[in-house]
Amino acid sequence: MKKYSIGVDYGTLSARAALIDLSNGAEVCVCEYAYPHAILCGRDISNDTSAESLAMQLQHPADYLEALEHTVKKVVSDSGISPKDVVGIGFDFTACTILPITGDGTPLCFLEKYKNEPHAYVKLWKHHGAQAEADEITALAKKEGEEWLDIYGGKVSSEWLFPKIYETLHKAPEVFDDTYRFIEAGDWIVLMLTGEESHSSCMAGYKGLWNKENGYPKNSFWAKLDSRLSHIVGTKVSENVLPTGTKAGALCKRGAELTGLLENTAVAVPIIDAHAALPAAGITTAGKLMVIIGTSSCHIVMSENAGNVPDICGSVKDGVIAGLCAHEAGQGCVGDSFDWFIKNCVPESYANEARDKNISIFALLDEKASALSVGQNRVVALDWFNGNRTPYSDADLSGMIVGLTLNTKPEDIYRAILESTAFGTKSIVDIYEKNGVCIDEVYAAGGISRKNAFLMQMYADVLGKRIKVTSSSQAAAKGSAIFASVAGGYFENANDAAKVLADSVEKTYEPNLENTEKYQKLYDSYKELSEYFAKSTSVMKNLRKI
Amino acid sequence: MKKYSIGVDYGTLSARAALIDLSNGAEVCVCEYAYPHAILCGRDISNDTSAESLAMQLQHPADYLEALEHTVKKVVSDSGISPKDVVGIGFDFTACTILPITGDGTPLCFLEKYKNEPHAYVKLWKHHGAQAEADEITALAKKEGEEWLDIYGGKVSSEWLFPKIYETLHKAPEVFDDTYRFIEAGDWIVLMLTGEESHSSCMAGYKGLWNKENGYPKNSFWAKLDSRLSHIVGTKVSENVLPTGTKAGALCKRGAELTGLLENTAVAVPIIDAHAALPAAGITTAGKLMVIIGTSSCHIVMSENAGNVPDICGSVKDGVIAGLCAHEAGQGCVGDSFDWFIKNCVPESYANEARDKNISIFALLDEKASALSVGQNRVVALDWFNGNRTPYSDADLSGMIVGLTLNTKPEDIYRAILESTAFGTKSIVDIYEKNGVCIDEVYAAGGISRKNAFLMQMYADVLGKRIKVTSSSQAAAKGSAIFASVAGGYFENANDAAKVLADSVEKTYEPNLENTEKYQKLYDSYKELSEYFAKSTSVMKNLRKI
Repeated sequence: MKKYSIGVDYGTLSARAALIDLSNGAEVCVCEYAYPHAILCGRDISNDTSAESLAMQLQHPADYLEALEHTVKKVVSDSGISPKDVVGIGFDFTACTILPITGDGTPLCFLEKYKNEPHAYVKLWKHHGAQAEADEITALAKKEGEEWLDIYGGKVSSEWLFPKIYETLHKAPEVFDDTYRFIEAGDWIVLMLTGEESHSSCMAGYKGLWNKENGYPKNSFWAKLDSRLSHIVGTKVSENVLPTGTKAGALCKRGAELTGLLENTAVAVPIIDAHAALPAAGITTAGKLMVIIGTSSCHIVMSENAGNVPDICGSVKDGVIAGLCAHEAGQGCVGDSFDWFIKNCVPESYANEARDKNISIFALLDEKASALSVGQNRVVALDWFNGNRTPYSDADLSGMIVGLTLNTKPEDIYRAILESTAFGTKSIVDIYEKNGVCIDEVYAAGGISRKNAFLMQMYADVLGKRIKVTSSSQAAAKGSAIFASVAGGYFENANDAAKVLADSVEKTYEPNLENTEKYQKLYDSYKELSEYFAKSTSVMKNLRKI
Repeated sequence: MKKYSIGVDYGTLSARAALIDLSNGAEVCVCEYAYPHAILCGRDISNDTSAESLAMQLQHPADYLEALEHTVKKVVSDSGISPKDVVGIGFDFTACTILPITGDGTPLCFLEKYKNEPHAYVKLWKHHGAQAEADEITALAKKEGEEWLDIYGGKVSSEWLFPKIYETLHKAPEVFDDTYRFIEAGDWIVLMLTGEESHSSCMAGYKGLWNKENGYPKNSFWAKLDSRLSHIVGTKVSENVLPTGTKAGALCKRGAELTGLLENTAVAVPIIDAHAALPAAGITTAGKLMVIIGTSSCHIVMSENAGNVPDICGSVKDGVIAGLCAHEAGQGCVGDSFDWFIKNCVPESYANEARDKNISIFALLDEKASALSVGQNRVVALDWFNGNRTPYSDADLSGMIVGLTLNTKPEDIYRAILESTAFGTKSIVDIYEKNGVCIDEVYAAGGISRKNAFLMQMYADVLGKRIKVTSSSQAAAKGSAIFASVAGGYFENANDAAKVLADSVEKTYEPNLENTEKYQKLYDSYKELSEYFAKSTSVMKNLRKI
């Protein structure tokens, strides 16, 4: 009798469940569900119209349960299999995406008292309201000589757990006081399904300043930051951290009802969405860089023994595969900047042209931009429309475009924005290689990598490296299903599971080395402007302070 | 019996004739005519599709004659006056806008041999193909210690006469050889009407490196630049320069036929279009800054005894009014950048909204941008979409936009572009004041100054100074008509004529000093970025070199 596992990939705007045939890795059935509330800002919840409120990036946790119920029930019913043949269910989730809950797991925003309080909702990974708090934590850690800071490239990001908690303490102290636990949304889903609370080592390791040897930064450190944080670890932040690739628990009655699966079905420890793409692509060894290209991008590579790497997001032992150190770097804004351009900067005449040709505006711009030779647009951009993650870890940085003339066309700027994301990826590859992390092969996953051949060829040309794109339309969900199969005991470990289940390479982009040479000059300008705007001038920071 | 004069204002895209009542300055009749060929690039003429060809800014001289005939005949016939009551006709023209002609005044582009040769056509003021030549002339003048360089702020602009001629020598040597004279288009019109060749002191002074005391740079200087230029002054460049405000000649038979005026009607020495706005506004004394805001902007102020001013375009004695030194500075791109934005960067949804409201897209963007408080857009731009004229005199500089985020809206960028032109004007006012040129009052003229109250209030706020906008819809044409009235002997001099004929102040913008203070911070960023991009990095120059 065939056995199956289910992986659920919680992305930024929707969740996707994939039901996988454990005999061969085939995606038997996939179902997507867009979150009804999408992304909320403070004003949507509280009618506060300040710039700070408008900039908040919040979500409604009810959407996650709704998406779970809809997608899991649908992949089981559509594939016609029996729930008893599902050996396990696993999850990946955006991170750090956290919410405050009560002792029984209820999100504070479900309480009447807090339904109009933005800080009681889920703070999405790209919520950037905690830059001041992140800076304060970094400064104190430097002053105190905290060794854990080196694990994170020397800087704490405003996107992470403690800055987000600290922001809530500052801006909504009552929410802080009433919170039993701040929890990653991925861990909260596990709590809802199993009735037991645990925390993912991947999420705690990359986003919670936790490591296997020493746990979280000590309460004595937090007490120096603010006396109200002197007991934070062990109370509002749980120390019950489980390794990824293991079993978190089993479906309780409520979990079984929600998913339509049998009680006691195994539930895997969740993993960060981007990280799930590695086992999905069969990457279980060192030296293979996986670039997951979506609204933002993640660059994960494992090494045998490379130590901490400066300026990246973090290096976590056993972070993806046991025995290897997984390094993560990232770009805060990739597909999001393309969308921004399409929505805000494309003239009506182009919209008409796309309609006449019966293609999307994206396709029209790709057509026009790809007709240009390297450098012909004469425009260079910085891809910091949502701040910079690697190497500056600074949410106050912003997008920049230079080289504009009266002859500049929309496709010139569009191409420069695409190129800026390729240059951002190259700067990350450079950091890895300079710090002893070998990159023998480059893989790409994520919707954009399969949809946009123009962009992928550009990435291969800019990097001067071959890029392999895997065949899965749902790499993250596949990775979660692999971990679910291990949690359910069908395979011994993730390595064995990946050998059977991993996706194949669908398309390979070979670099055009002539273009690589031409791009080097534009990349030099990108790097020069990056250093200037991130380090030599306060112009970008001053604009954010207004 | 009432007497009249006619001023013809040759702008970048059209010419406008104004027939003025000399008893009171009333504009009896105005007629505009758009040049049929508008602006041509090299490809329009030669099918050369190189980037250099596409960047050329050329015009067809036949358009100027057509516009002259159409507009002058129409203002006379529409106003119902007799041609015998027209005492004179005068012209202003964009400059440096030059063409190569044969010994009988025929433009080389009229010859069959050269009809497909771009360099045989008119090079418009904003043709920027001669940056390398301008740099070479500047370098040699510095090396040789040429004193005339100080008159022009220490730098020769690529827009001027000698760089444009030198470019032709480099790129179309046969055209250079076959040219009898390189002539300003304004002087060419006078030649066509009077049959006699002369040259305007205003145009030669500001654009031809000519001054009253020493004439042009000596042939010994040009010989050091290139042996083929060793006889340029006195041959292909004429030394017959006449002061503005005087008579150039009288209509010959052909001129009378072309205009429908009587033979022997007085023809005034032409003046640069922007400069004509001063007498039109009644400015005949020192300390009154006139900002003419159009596709580009000019900033002209007279002083009693201020010497040369660094970084501006030039200081010419008797340049506008006898006895005073007229200083000119400029911004290469103002209205042009607004048009560029409207054409290339406004999304379809905004076009639809403007249609729904039955207003122009400009009006819609002004509405949205003016609803923002100072700094709320959090975007800063550099207004160098057509290079920078003052203070860097560098056509290779380009536009820049910084502060972009996923929340940035089109009106945020639009407002930043408007603000960047105000900041550019403030940086010019700062240069004047730091160098002893007093600015007691600020006037504005040009279509945009009367049409866009939002922009004018922004300028007043940024400068922290009251701005007076005059009532004429045709300030330049009025100024030309004033000079025509003097050439025709109706008034003794331009001062007397201006007292009767000048336009009144139509609207005064008082600065909001609270905004002035807020703008100071944005201006500081603008200046910091200006210095960086113009002096500390080669990024902009490298992009132009590709």
